[in-house]
Amino acid sequence: MAPDRVRNLELTHIVDRRADHKRAQFGHNGVVWASTIDDILHSDIDIVVEAIGGLDTATEWIRRALEAGKSVVTANKQVIARHGPVLWALAARQGRQLRFEAAVGGAMPIVRAVCDGLAGDRITRIVGILNGTTNAVLSRMEALGCSLEEALSDARARGYAEADPSADLDGDDARAKLAILCAVAFGLRVDPTAIAAHSTAGTTALDFDRARRGGRTIRQLAHAAYDRATSTLTAWVVPIAVPRGSIFGRAVGAQNVAVVTGVHAGDVGVFGAGAGGDATAVAILSDVAAIARDRAAIVTPPVLISPRNIKGFTTLNAEPAESAEASFFCDFSGLCVDRRVEAEAV
Amino acid sequence: MAPDRVRNLELTHIVDRRADHKRAQFGHNGVVWASTIDDILHSDIDIVVEAIGGLDTATEWIRRALEAGKSVVTANKQVIARHGPVLWALAARQGRQLRFEAAVGGAMPIVRAVCDGLAGDRITRIVGILNGTTNAVLSRMEALGCSLEEALSDARARGYAEADPSADLDGDDARAKLAILCAVAFGLRVDPTAIAAHSTAGTTALDFDRARRGGRTIRQLAHAAYDRATSTLTAWVVPIAVPRGSIFGRAVGAQNVAVVTGVHAGDVGVFGAGAGGDATAVAILSDVAAIARDRAAIVTPPVLISPRNIKGFTTLNAEPAESAEASFFCDFSGLCVDRRVEAEAV
Repeated sequence: MAPDRVRNLELTHIVDRRADHKRAQFGHNGVVWASTIDDILHSDIDIVVEAIGGLDTATEWIRRALEAGKSVVTANKQVIARHGPVLWALAARQGRQLRFEAAVGGAMPIVRAVCDGLAGDRITRIVGILNGTTNAVLSRMEALGCSLEEALSDARARGYAEADPSADLDGDDARAKLAILCAVAFGLRVDPTAIAAHSTAGTTALDFDRARRGGRTIRQLAHAAYDRATSTLTAWVVPIAVPRGSIFGRAVGAQNVAVVTGVHAGDVGVFGAGAGGDATAVAILSDVAAIARDRAAIVTPPVLISPRNIKGFTTLNAEPAESAEASFFCDFSGLCVDRRVEAEAV
Repeated sequence: MAPDRVRNLELTHIVDRRADHKRAQFGHNGVVWASTIDDILHSDIDIVVEAIGGLDTATEWIRRALEAGKSVVTANKQVIARHGPVLWALAARQGRQLRFEAAVGGAMPIVRAVCDGLAGDRITRIVGILNGTTNAVLSRMEALGCSLEEALSDARARGYAEADPSADLDGDDARAKLAILCAVAFGLRVDPTAIAAHSTAGTTALDFDRARRGGRTIRQLAHAAYDRATSTLTAWVVPIAVPRGSIFGRAVGAQNVAVVTGVHAGDVGVFGAGAGGDATAVAILSDVAAIARDRAAIVTPPVLISPRNIKGFTTLNAEPAESAEASFFCDFSGLCVDRRVEAEAV
């Protein structure tokens, strides 16, 4: 399982509510099955991986793990979006690391691209497909001309969609990821619920027909642009018509794509599998490897301010979809995002 | 100049052969203009940025800087491709860092994606456009139907091409970058000259005509795949026909793209400006920022072996270009690279 480049790591404990059951099922294999977090906080382990999901218990466990002197790797976008600043500060005080690459974009290393690769630039905008489930649904509707409900059944069968997909379709998931990116890219503290969102749940086969006639298809895009001069953040998550040949239109299945614009570097992009166990596992293991390589590494917590204004999405020159206000038509051309959308999204 | 996220940095010395002239021209402005590297090695600076290019002097300066206890940031692909292993080991012994994001892919953070973002996966293949100059030339030939010589004049005028563009067109530049990626992705020590290359210099407007009729265009691709079971590296840099709608066909101007395939993550990609002073400056400053954030960071040198076999490019099912053996026709479809090329490139 562990690839060549992840050395000297040992899985010692697994915390599971049904630890007794799991122990009987899988045996020990050198691993301690524990039923509470306390069992591992008092052990001599170095790194805790939080993959339980949810908000309150996960936040509490991460906090307690950091307080116990452990470094933490999490895939939990809601925890980081809402409590990241407090937890980052706690990790820094403790001289430990809190890493969260898996919380945004699955295997696509967008957090590292923003925090490290573009640390030498001033980032002005991030546009991306950040929800793999919704993208799998929309790209299947595009390919088969089917209804959203049919596409959703398929996504459920493939393990991409939850029984209740509303967090994905309504944009809550992408808003949390966008809030995290606003923190690390712009140094902004943004409540995910302050980001404008239109649900993708109302998108129909008719919307796709109409988009297709214009050489377009529909994707759920997450967009954040920050104007430092006026301290204005423009941020939204909406289903939107994009050229079929654009990098967003070409993203199919659970794929994620993000284009990050810097003042000096221009457009820099990343793409990759945005959902699924393997993609998440790679992102988590990469963070574990980073901590194992340098347990004393200094991860400076971002200095965050609140933006003075937060704007959403308005369709000045955009052409709304026929059947639903759920779809918006806007011009994204070529490999990267067209500048014109800036004017339209004011 | 320095963006928000690069704090507490001070430019103290500039080494230039014409230091006296430059000092007179630009004044001091708090910066020491030095004519030899010795002046800065004996100072209390922390980081040396090597941007002089060339091989021997640059290698010597980097070595001496590390020996003097400085960390080093370099954009020099030839130095890293040829002497990386020795210099990485030296940096590790010294407890200092040698960072080289700018050596591959300009502003596109491919080194971080491979070393950090995908550290938790086993990488099997890297395919990319790694030379911005050649891509600017080829995409201009595609757009205007002009000759290579005409496209080259334009690239020179825009500052993308050297007076002698042979290192770019012949593939030496991309081979050095590919050798670096083989080291960090596969743990392989590869002499750049052992990588098969076909020059792009012979590509003509006729090649583009023919490619266009097949819905394709021509790009200089760099490809490396490693089969661990047989310790066989397949590596080449060639001008090749790619679908116009593919991510490679859509890369225009000095843009770079790379698709990295992992056993678990599947295809993960990055793209961005691959040439130009601003792109290089962002990559260098990002490395400087990483060192400034954590001067004691541990950067483990890759453990390198030599591959048992190195194969080049053979065109089993590929269709050669009409006018030159410089162009090869091969099928790269969709957003990511088609698996079929594997069979064709054996």
